[in-house]
Amino acid sequence: MATIDDCQSIHQLIVALSIFEKEPHQVDINVEDLIRDGFSDNPLFRCLVAQREQKIVGMALFYPRYSTWKGPTFHLEDLIVQKEHTHQGIGKQLFKEFIAYAYRQGVQRIEWAVLNWNKNAIDFYKKSGAKILEDWRLVQMTRQQMNQYLN
Amino acid sequence: MATIDDCQSIHQLIVALSIFEKEPHQVDINVEDLIRDGFSDNPLFRCLVAQREQKIVGMALFYPRYSTWKGPTFHLEDLIVQKEHTHQGIGKQLFKEFIAYAYRQGVQRIEWAVLNWNKNAIDFYKKSGAKILEDWRLVQMTRQQMNQYLN
Repeated sequence: MATIDDCQSIHQLIVALSIFEKEPHQVDINVEDLIRDGFSDNPLFRCLVAQREQKIVGMALFYPRYSTWKGPTFHLEDLIVQKEHTHQGIGKQLFKEFIAYAYRQGVQRIEWAVLNWNKNAIDFYKKSGAKILEDWRLVQMTRQQMNQYLN
Repeated sequence: MATIDDCQSIHQLIVALSIFEKEPHQVDINVEDLIRDGFSDNPLFRCLVAQREQKIVGMALFYPRYSTWKGPTFHLEDLIVQKEHTHQGIGKQLFKEFIAYAYRQGVQRIEWAVLNWNKNAIDFYKKSGAKILEDWRLVQMTRQQMNQYLN
């Protein structure tokens, strides 16, 4: 599991993923936010990290969710490997470690989201035995939209 | 907010939604699970309920999530209104109450999922100012699939 000292590297990986996902200006949180949100008495997430030569090159960040059909689940928010370290099995290792952790915790399901043009990721997940739900869509409302709706 | 005494009605609404979503055999949790998971010292969800003539006719069940771009968010897992009580503004009232609660708690985003054939729900959400993310897909792995992947 990640420690407070890893938050700088975790933040760098988050920024790198936002660039890959073509939304580089969307990262509003900083290293201090990650420290407060992930390493206080009631952490909002947990994070597994992969290292090569004492440096963090990948991470799997997740947190609990709840299914009204299945009970407690885990959500994998980010699975990120540094571009320079792809094709070395690091993503698979992190993914497997996350699944093993979730399984030990007894959750009945794990879930995450994938961009429909990210063919490599979709192939990876399909091979793992996971199911892509084609008929569900995500919906989001920003704080600004919430404010508009309420007024 | 719902209390332990509401769990029987909450469970009935969950079962009713599973029938509407054409997956009636997927509800594995029972009333005792809801009581334990939602009303212990560290509840896994919160639930708003709507009443008509002292009976619960609708609910909005949600819990915290975490965005590595925005920080703490809320996820609306279920927004359900009894079939006999639709078209009375109850869903809108619960939705608004959820948004107001999330806004007061200071989250930067709320999110949920919708079935792509549920036109009424999609129209309702679009009108609210929420954004449907067309390019993301949900992925799930059951406990059985996790076990297969690990072995």
